[in-house]
Amino acid sequence: MPVVGVIGAGQLARMTQPAAIALGITLKVFGEAEGSSAHQAVTKVGDYNDFDQLAEFAKTVDVITFDHEHVPTAILEKLVSQGIKVNPGPNALKHAQNKLTMRRKLTELGLPQPIWKAAKTEAEIAEFLANHGPKIVVKTPIGGYDGKGVRVISQTLEVSDWLAKIDSFGGELLLEEKVDFVGELAQLSARNPSGEFRAWPLVATFQEAGVCSEVVAPAPASEHHAKAEQIAKSIAEGLGVVGVMAVELFQSRSGEILVNELAMRPHNSGHFSIDAAITSQFEQHLRGVLDLPLGETSSTSKFAVMINLLGVDSENDFVRHYPKAMAMFPQIKFHMYEKAPRQGRKMGHLTLQGEDLTELLATGRACRDLLYNR
Amino acid sequence: MPVVGVIGAGQLARMTQPAAIALGITLKVFGEAEGSSAHQAVTKVGDYNDFDQLAEFAKTVDVITFDHEHVPTAILEKLVSQGIKVNPGPNALKHAQNKLTMRRKLTELGLPQPIWKAAKTEAEIAEFLANHGPKIVVKTPIGGYDGKGVRVISQTLEVSDWLAKIDSFGGELLLEEKVDFVGELAQLSARNPSGEFRAWPLVATFQEAGVCSEVVAPAPASEHHAKAEQIAKSIAEGLGVVGVMAVELFQSRSGEILVNELAMRPHNSGHFSIDAAITSQFEQHLRGVLDLPLGETSSTSKFAVMINLLGVDSENDFVRHYPKAMAMFPQIKFHMYEKAPRQGRKMGHLTLQGEDLTELLATGRACRDLLYNR
Repeated sequence: MPVVGVIGAGQLARMTQPAAIALGITLKVFGEAEGSSAHQAVTKVGDYNDFDQLAEFAKTVDVITFDHEHVPTAILEKLVSQGIKVNPGPNALKHAQNKLTMRRKLTELGLPQPIWKAAKTEAEIAEFLANHGPKIVVKTPIGGYDGKGVRVISQTLEVSDWLAKIDSFGGELLLEEKVDFVGELAQLSARNPSGEFRAWPLVATFQEAGVCSEVVAPAPASEHHAKAEQIAKSIAEGLGVVGVMAVELFQSRSGEILVNELAMRPHNSGHFSIDAAITSQFEQHLRGVLDLPLGETSSTSKFAVMINLLGVDSENDFVRHYPKAMAMFPQIKFHMYEKAPRQGRKMGHLTLQGEDLTELLATGRACRDLLYNR
Repeated sequence: MPVVGVIGAGQLARMTQPAAIALGITLKVFGEAEGSSAHQAVTKVGDYNDFDQLAEFAKTVDVITFDHEHVPTAILEKLVSQGIKVNPGPNALKHAQNKLTMRRKLTELGLPQPIWKAAKTEAEIAEFLANHGPKIVVKTPIGGYDGKGVRVISQTLEVSDWLAKIDSFGGELLLEEKVDFVGELAQLSARNPSGEFRAWPLVATFQEAGVCSEVVAPAPASEHHAKAEQIAKSIAEGLGVVGVMAVELFQSRSGEILVNELAMRPHNSGHFSIDAAITSQFEQHLRGVLDLPLGETSSTSKFAVMINLLGVDSENDFVRHYPKAMAMFPQIKFHMYEKAPRQGRKMGHLTLQGEDLTELLATGRACRDLLYNR
């Protein structure tokens, strides 16, 4: 079987291991440091900004893919130019790496998104504020994740620090209208190089302080399933995405869905699929990047709920509460990432499946609170 | 989290890895040779008959458990006497290691089993043949698996080679009536040291040439579910079993169920639980040996079908047929063990779940035949 190389040794690489073990695929991970979440599969520790180190790692695998989107496009293009297979390729991945590149492409594809503009100066920001305020969203085009690199502002001076170092973000900031949304959704899908496309059910996502806290699959009482899948398909095909892609969407008060963010890798909104879908996003990503046919994405239950375990302090590793939590909640699937505890850090998640959504949410939250020792 | 050490690096150890990754448990495997099925988790390669090597491995883990039942009882007892935690312990495990020990214990517990007798001489075998023939079953008490060490005979000379080296089997052979059975069943269950017991649904198993070929969960149209679970509970408690136990049963023409064999570890009859039960047998075994509360064992679908992939020759590794098989059967879960192809060898398995058992079986067999290149 081919060998898949993953750059980045976080929880996404960690959760890819079980899928690789089942399929009989060898997984090799390029980590940044010892003791990472995916440590068991790490075969090389190094700096992903160093072309030579990545090229050396690439010699040991058949295809390269990612746990994160931080490898510079120029380095990926150089790898590809030397005949190394990289999926998703830099031409697709650059849209997930740079939010302005993404916005421009979505405009070109005619897909629904918030009103946006690129800005280089305080005056341009002031003008956008005047037209779309009183509050607007400013994003650094590169380097943001989990709420970092995103600010809701009502005055230009709230991003004066970003303007002062605008060159480090590529010379521009992304301005977006602050969408009056009633909910957030995510459409998970996958595509392989042969062009096969499959989507999981549209899910509802819930954030706390900019970090995903809960996911409900499928999104209950949503009329947007077909539209969201169509948007994902247009993006996957329009951008030439290979592997799993998550499209985060706003559900506006006026009844539209608008593309918020893109991720071209397994995504927090798809963790439910490990336990509650016929094919998990991690297995599907492996199939996709290897150009194998994609697996069935249907659910094994009417509803699934995924609850993130976010660090409460630097002491509680959650697993110390396993005996009590497992005794009280035998139906819950526990997923721990072996990461050192830190406040707000994604440390693990819980998954429940069943018929009664209200009960699933109440049970999952009770288990989370027990692990949090609240 | 504690570290679990597994002696033996076969497919059972391999399939324990994903469960350990999810729970955040570190798994260390003691293998016999490089390149084993569980190679990714192997931390020591050595001889499990060598006490010193096992004791050294034991220092690196919190509890020892097994991928197979071949470690001599005396060695396990010595490990326990030195304070090393071994689950299941030698007092339980000896019943799975020695079929005569098992038969004697089941008689003591009053559990249903075939008529049996220990025999040391040709005369004793001839007498049992006369009373229970024309055919009887002769088993070597130790060292048998997958049909090895089992013969159906009608004349004593068919086991004269075994009589000649009877000391290597502990000085006795096990004689059993040849049960006129209409089907074979298996009851998978788990117990932890605190005494918690959980059982999965009773399954129907199908053998080809003494090797498991298919499993249907739950056993369709069986009236034996409650009785089988009760038998498993009596054995687990009576023998002090810790971790997963499989009880293989005959369903006799007269409507009884009789205990055929015992295994004290995850078992081929329980592989369906990876994809089609809330808690897999591998996760449950980890919970059991760590004395963590056990997980829910209910199914995610009305029926699950598990089909073994048995080697057809020394060339076909099955994965070469992945593209075609995955394209035709997106709903099938593929499990490969990364073992070199050999005729009859357990190389992997397939799992399907759904409502229509006839369709599941037909689909699974079609996929198997495609992988076999029949």
